[in-house]
Amino acid sequence: MAAQERAIRTRHNIMLAAATVFNERGYKAATIADILAKAGVTKGALYFHFPSKDELAQEVLAAQNRDFSVPDRPSKTQEVVDIVMLHTHRLQSDPMVRAAVRLTMDQLSTELDRTGPFRQWSDVTRERLEKAGAQGELLPHVLPGETSDVLVGSYAGVQSMSHALSEYQDLPVRVNALLRHLLPSIVLPSVLASVDIAGDRGARVHAEMLAA
Amino acid sequence: MAAQERAIRTRHNIMLAAATVFNERGYKAATIADILAKAGVTKGALYFHFPSKDELAQEVLAAQNRDFSVPDRPSKTQEVVDIVMLHTHRLQSDPMVRAAVRLTMDQLSTELDRTGPFRQWSDVTRERLEKAGAQGELLPHVLPGETSDVLVGSYAGVQSMSHALSEYQDLPVRVNALLRHLLPSIVLPSVLASVDIAGDRGARVHAEMLAA
Repeated sequence: MAAQERAIRTRHNIMLAAATVFNERGYKAATIADILAKAGVTKGALYFHFPSKDELAQEVLAAQNRDFSVPDRPSKTQEVVDIVMLHTHRLQSDPMVRAAVRLTMDQLSTELDRTGPFRQWSDVTRERLEKAGAQGELLPHVLPGETSDVLVGSYAGVQSMSHALSEYQDLPVRVNALLRHLLPSIVLPSVLASVDIAGDRGARVHAEMLAA
Repeated sequence: MAAQERAIRTRHNIMLAAATVFNERGYKAATIADILAKAGVTKGALYFHFPSKDELAQEVLAAQNRDFSVPDRPSKTQEVVDIVMLHTHRLQSDPMVRAAVRLTMDQLSTELDRTGPFRQWSDVTRERLEKAGAQGELLPHVLPGETSDVLVGSYAGVQSMSHALSEYQDLPVRVNALLRHLLPSIVLPSVLASVDIAGDRGARVHAEMLAA
């Protein structure tokens, strides 16, 4: 195994260990010693990759950003939906994404800057909504900045409720219901008629991206 | 001071101390010793009122339920809005409500049953939506159980985003935006035209209840 490949693998192991420890203990209570024990690496190796606990947490938080890139669609509204649905799928299936979301929603981690994920999600969504607007997909009164914040904020709560009530088992159903309530206030009915918001949309987009 | 009055005051002091400690340390890391130190009461007094840390947390969680009772209105949609707006006001002004919401949203507190607040909020909202439907205020396709879950879940996330980005300063503006996106999919336009969803609605309902 080449040195570079080994470094990438070590880095990934440390992140997975950190994600698990943050998940189990919360950001505040988690220690570097816990993460070292879980990752099975030396202190030197950890600090080579991540100078502090905060930088580690920020890297874990960033794991959810991979859901931003979805295939191009003629309808930009569909891209907004696909980002939400792909994230829903990965929240159910990827422990790193789960850890990232829990850190984001941890209102007790006051020392950790949790604003990044909210802002990034909102920026990515706003950009797509602006394109959707330019293409004439949106209702005339929509302000993309306001609407993207509503989408991101409301999604964050629906996933939290689904986590508390069913450990994410009912998440696709709840996300579908949320979109049925929000999209008619955002998108023209004629556009909405051909947007796919089915609960299994995320799994299909994920498969499409793996195949590509 | 009568013995009963003293007991009520002690109980309240313990709850306030517990709320502060849960807020600062999270449910998992908080200890009975921390709460005793903060409340300045004896172990015996604490266990007289609350048999366990879990019971204490459940009482703190229940603090948000006081927002369920709002004055009767001819429009039941307005009552749903008033519950949301009163809660928004108290989230900005009452440390106990803040602590209750943080505990509810603490996805790391896996030993704590956080399902109660989600279910209670949804039940109270569903009941009012059913009445609104019976009075002909709602669009014909609305399922009160589904819509109440969407309202409660999306609100939970919007408050979390507002907490992360502005320590709740922008909460009334965000809640107003959320309601403008959701209500047109729930309520008849002719009803919606006379529903008050202004950002200062919560403060006004609160003042009205204090005066009564």
